[in-house]
This record gives sequence, structure tokens and C-alpha cells, in this order.
Amino acid sequence: MGEINIELMQKDSPIGIFDSGVGGLTVVREIMRQIPNEKIIYFGDTARVPYGSKSQETVTRYSEQIVRFLRQFNVKTIVVACNTASAYALDTLEEASDIPIIGVVKPGARVAADVTRNGRIGVIATEATIGSRMYSKYIQSISSNVTIYGKACPLFVPLVEEGLLEDPVTDEIARRYLAELIDIDIDTLILGCTHYPLIRSTVGRIMGDRVTLVNPAYETALELKQLLAGRNMLNDAPPKLGSEQYRFFVSDKAEKFVRFANSIIKYGILSAKAVNIEEY
Amino acid sequence: MGEINIELMQKDSPIGIFDSGVGGLTVVREIMRQIPNEKIIYFGDTARVPYGSKSQETVTRYSEQIVRFLRQFNVKTIVVACNTASAYALDTLEEASDIPIIGVVKPGARVAADVTRNGRIGVIATEATIGSRMYSKYIQSISSNVTIYGKACPLFVPLVEEGLLEDPVTDEIARRYLAELIDIDIDTLILGCTHYPLIRSTVGRIMGDRVTLVNPAYETALELKQLLAGRNMLNDAPPKLGSEQYRFFVSDKAEKFVRFANSIIKYGILSAKAVNIEEY
Repeated sequence: MGEINIELMQKDSPIGIFDSGVGGLTVVREIMRQIPNEKIIYFGDTARVPYGSKSQETVTRYSEQIVRFLRQFNVKTIVVACNTASAYALDTLEEASDIPIIGVVKPGARVAADVTRNGRIGVIATEATIGSRMYSKYIQSISSNVTIYGKACPLFVPLVEEGLLEDPVTDEIARRYLAELIDIDIDTLILGCTHYPLIRSTVGRIMGDRVTLVNPAYETALELKQLLAGRNMLNDAPPKLGSEQYRFFVSDKAEKFVRFANSIIKYGILSAKAVNIEEY
Repeated sequence: MGEINIELMQKDSPIGIFDSGVGGLTVVREIMRQIPNEKIIYFGDTARVPYGSKSQETVTRYSEQIVRFLRQFNVKTIVVACNTASAYALDTLEEASDIPIIGVVKPGARVAADVTRNGRIGVIATEATIGSRMYSKYIQSISSNVTIYGKACPLFVPLVEEGLLEDPVTDEIARRYLAELIDIDIDTLILGCTHYPLIRSTVGRIMGDRVTLVNPAYETALELKQLLAGRNMLNDAPPKLGSEQYRFFVSDKAEKFVRFANSIIKYGILSAKAVNIEEY
């Protein structure tokens, strides 16, 4: 992979963003909205998706390969736009990195701790993210007077990928997963998986108006903006006409990715390039 | 990986079997029943599961790595106990191999062609297996007077893995997937994914008594037995007491695999070993 030349990093260097597949595009969408001048290099690990049922060791190895891939593009920062990878691998990635790496768990945890009034916060996420207890750890490190209830929802990702965003089956599954969170009277619910904002209205309807839904994508984009502003590394102007502002890479099924991506992001995504991530 | 010493292969050499994860255990179960003297080396690619939504190129690369892994154990034959890998990779694997490699698609196709009376055969499977049209190709190469209707059922695998084997949600999803197959009056339905035999009763209830369900696992075990018998390579006697008859390897989450395996297979599986398959 060779040496990384830090001195080449400029305000107009791109931001690297990765996810296990398409879910991270909900984070990309927020970043495009909040800091529209930035260049983005996105990698979706579609050959090994999903991460949410895999082990910490495996998810960390995959994440390290992807960071090596992204650094080829002289990125000025990396966003881990996947809750599972943020929960399992962020500390390891940060330790080994000389550029800032931010995940989606901390920003989501921070806002949840801030908005709760009764101190009862729910987290819905993959098996892996819930098992890691990372949301609990972060929230309790900020605010000791809260209780966090985690609930793994393994069918949500396949239901979203099957396109059943508004469907009686998704309703029924959501009612089952959310029942215990309603029973214990949470007032704040973190959508702890990047796919879940896509079924936000179903979750919101079932939880009712009294529960605030927290979408870490929004908070992550905000944190990224503040981080870059603090280092005077925000891009001052839009990229030159003709230069590629957004580039998408995947480890498999580039065409399917492009179709899904265009259903999430307004900006027209023309293509994604397939790479063999195991070589990194 | 080194050289493979064919001369070492004996009647009591093991059979190698692989799948993307746990589904292939339904094939293992049939092989254990039909040829109980055989040793088995099983590999489940739990770090990269599922295969059914991935591309031919990726599934073939994964399968080649696994074949290299299994050949270390001096296996006398390999069973591709995964419909997607059988549909996408079997021809490539066979071409490069000096030991017999059999998949689950051909045996299933053969029996379906045999049992249909009205010449209308349905196949339910993953997106990848249906997209490959391999069941259609094989059936039509045996019997020209049949029509094959394929239907991808992407939610069946997650529903089975979530344990919803008998559940109103699985019923509802199955009714949707199977509606068009009922409408076109098939009389034979191939369960073209190794997870599907686990929801056989739901599928059978919805399709009704007039439709014969074909489980390729059973036919594959039979074909394996005939192949070994024809080459005089069936193991004459059970393995010696104290030797390990069945060994299980996975690429991730060995403990979870063992729990699931013990719910499918009566023989007590004590352990599975995790290996980094990307190194092969």
C-alpha cells in the first residue's frame, strides 16, 4: 500500500466514508446537505455485508482493510458510517491513525443523553452493536443518571433491503421488537443502524409522539463539520466543474448499489467501481 | 497451500462439504443418515454469509478459497452444499479439480424432472440462484417438455436465521412469494436453498397437497453415495473409536454456529474451529 504523504492533505482533500453496504448512504446524504462543498470517497463492503451478525475480530479486520483502501485517496478524515463497525472497530482504527476518524455511535449517544427528560433511553441496532454495549458505555460516560435499554432487530435490515419500507409485515415485526421498549417507558430512541432511518415513520408511529427518535446520521454530519471547521480544513469552495465530487466504490454488485443509492440520495449517482477489498 | 498428494486418498479419507453458513447442515444431516460410516469435514463461511445476494465472480472466488482449505484434509470428494455456490461456481471448481465435486442443483433438478406430471416446475431460491437460471438449464437439458418458474425469496433466509420457523410473519411472506407459483399451477416445487427445508411445513401448507416438494439435500446425499460406491470409495467401517468423525470449521462466530448446528443435527457437535478463509 506504500507510504501516506500527509503533507499533500489540503482543504480540498476528500472525506473517506465507509459502511458494510448501502446503509451508510443515509450518513452521506446528511454530509452532502450540511457541508456541500466537500468531496467524498465512499466505500460499501457489499461482498461481505452484513456486519451486524459478525464478530468484533472479523469486523475490525474488514474495517482495517477499508481504511487502507481509502487512504490511497489522500482523505483528510474518515467517517465510519456503520454502527457495527463504529461500535467494534473505532478505537482500534483511531489508535493506528494519524488523521481523525469519527464514528456514528458517539454523536448519536451524545444527543440522546442531551434530549432525554426521564433518563430512559432505548437503542435499536444490530445484534453486534447491541452486544458491544457501546451506546450504553458512551451515554453513561456523559451522563450517569440514565438507563439504556438495547434491543437487537435483526430483521430490519433484510426488510429494508427487500424494499418493505411501508408494509404490514414490517409493522408487525417492528411492533414485536419495540413492545418491551414501550413497556419500560423510554422517552428517547436511538436508530442505531444506518438502515433504520429508512423505516423511521414506521418506528415513530409505533413508539408514539412522546418518544424522540435520534438519527445519528444527522449528528455525525454535524460533528464532522465542527471537526473540520476547528482544524480550518473545511473546503472553501465547491470542487471545480468537471472534477468528480463524489466517488463510490463497492466490493461487489456495483450496479445494484447504484440503483439503491439513487433511491436514497437526490444527487444522481452514475456509477460505482468494484474493487477486491481482500487485497488491502 | 502446497502440493496435494492424491495417492494418500483412501476409502477412509473424509468428505469435504461447504456452505455459506449453516444452511448446508441440512445436507450434512442427509449424508450422515445415508452413509453413516463416512468422515466429514464441514466449512461454513460465516464471515461472508450470505452468498445469495452476491455476484458470480465473488461467490466463485470465495468457493475457490474454501476448496483450497478443504483439500488440506486430503478429502476424497467435495460437496458444494449451497445452491448459490453450486449454481455460480460448480463448473469452474470442477474444471480445476482432480477429485469429484458435486453440487446440490443437478440432483435436485433431476428428481424434479422425474416427478412432475404436468411439466410445470417451480423453483424457490436466493436472488443469485434464480438469476443464474441453473435449475432451468439442467432440467431442460434432461427433459425438454417442461417449463420452469423461478421465484427469489430473499427474506426466507433471515426469517429462518431469526428462528421464525412457524410464525404468522413467515406465513404471510411465504404466501406473497408463492402466490404466483400457485396461480400458474405448478405440481412440483424445488426448495432451492439449503435453509428452506427448515420451513418446509409452511411452504407445504401454502402450496397444498397436489404439489410435490423436492429437497435437493436428500438427492445430493444419494448421488454422493452412488458416486463413492461406483468408485469403490465408500468407507467400509465406522471410524475407529476416539477418532473424530465429524469436524466443523467456520470463518466467524464458532459458538453461534455450534448452537445452530445442534438444533439441526442430532449428533452432538461439541465445537467448531474458526479459520481466516481469506488466507487461502
